Amino acid sequence: MATLTVFNFMTLNGFTADAQGGIDWHRHGGEEGAYAAERANSGSMLLFGRRTYAMMASFWLTPMAAQMQPETAKGMNASPKVVFSRTLRSAEWENTRLVSGDPAAEVRRLKSEQQRPLTILGSGSIVTLCAEAGLVDEYALMLDPVLIGAGAAFAHGITGRRDLRLTEHRLFRSGVLLLRYRPV
Amino acid sequence: MATLTVFNFMTLNGFTADAQGGIDWHRHGGEEGAYAAERANSGSMLLFGRRTYAMMASFWLTPMAAQMQPETAKGMNASPKVVFSRTLRSAEWENTRLVSGDPAAEVRRLKSEQQRPLTILGSGSIVTLCAEAGLVDEYALMLDPVLIGAGAAFAHGITGRRDLRLTEHRLFRSGVLLLRYRPV
Repeated sequence: MATLTVFNFMTLNGFTADAQGGIDWHRHGGEEGAYAAERANSGSMLLFGRRTYAMMASFWLTPMAAQMQPETAKGMNASPKVVFSRTLRSAEWENTRLVSGDPAAEVRRLKSEQQRPLTILGSGSIVTLCAEAGLVDEYALMLDPVLIGAGAAFAHGITGRRDLRLTEHRLFRSGVLLLRYRPV
Repeated sequence: MATLTVFNFMTLNGFTADAQGGIDWHRHGGEEGAYAAERANSGSMLLFGRRTYAMMASFWLTPMAAQMQPETAKGMNASPKVVFSRTLRSAEWENTRLVSGDPAAEVRRLKSEQQRPLTILGSGSIVTLCAEAGLVDEYALMLDPVLIGAGAAFAHGITGRRDLRLTEHRLFRSGVLLLRYRPV
């Protein structure tokens, strides 16, 4: 049974992107970069919604990304990827499988069949669907020391409440707090 | 010059209350209680919007609150308080002054004239006004290990972004993280 981790950057007040979808408030220092590279090369299968997928593909396929963050770029490109979309016709980024069916059902199937751990990057709508279906085993959040006034709230739209247990917290020199939680 | 601290409970994803205004997700263990009692007896002047004021007054004036959390109740009742409201006609809770004028202007005046530190408890609209006016010296947040799907986002409606510096983090046994930040 594979585990499902949700990984996100987040402002102190719970936004994963500003009202225009921007994440330029995220502090990406050396420690954050090392952690991202480690995760990208951990052998996970990466799961995306359409928008995060398009943003990441357009970044990680560039020579610039390969020069700036070679280890992370290598890991991101090599990782097996799934993009959930009912509108995409094809997925250009290498090692990507396009799934147009119900994301929760597909994640449930992947969890039972895969050996690799599964990681959702960004992809707020997929996070909400999986949290709602009780499929998330871990939340890994980089909590940025910044407030913004509006945007996409993490786990927006889940019903009821999810009690969590903090399993790790680590302070990066940038002021970003890495927080890892498991559902209770 | 008095300092202004904003103090709030917050879900992991940035909500200070659920969609019905509820905060029953907050974990109030022994350490949280001791910290609240310490703050309530620190000699601060407490600032409130109308709704938080009404909720707190109706709680801290009860014999039940005095029995459950005697130190905090004593401090809360004894502290000088300001409630900002254009609709309230009087404020029943002892040591309260009702201010119907512009909250930001009044806070600016209090900061220049008071010796006591000022603390806003809850009161999201007042927090946003003061953050917007650049009047906040510290954010003290109890970050609860829980996700909810909707509600009142902390600092909702501020424009632009506020970069912060983490000055203290402390993990309570309940899983609540106390985080203190100062504006950069």
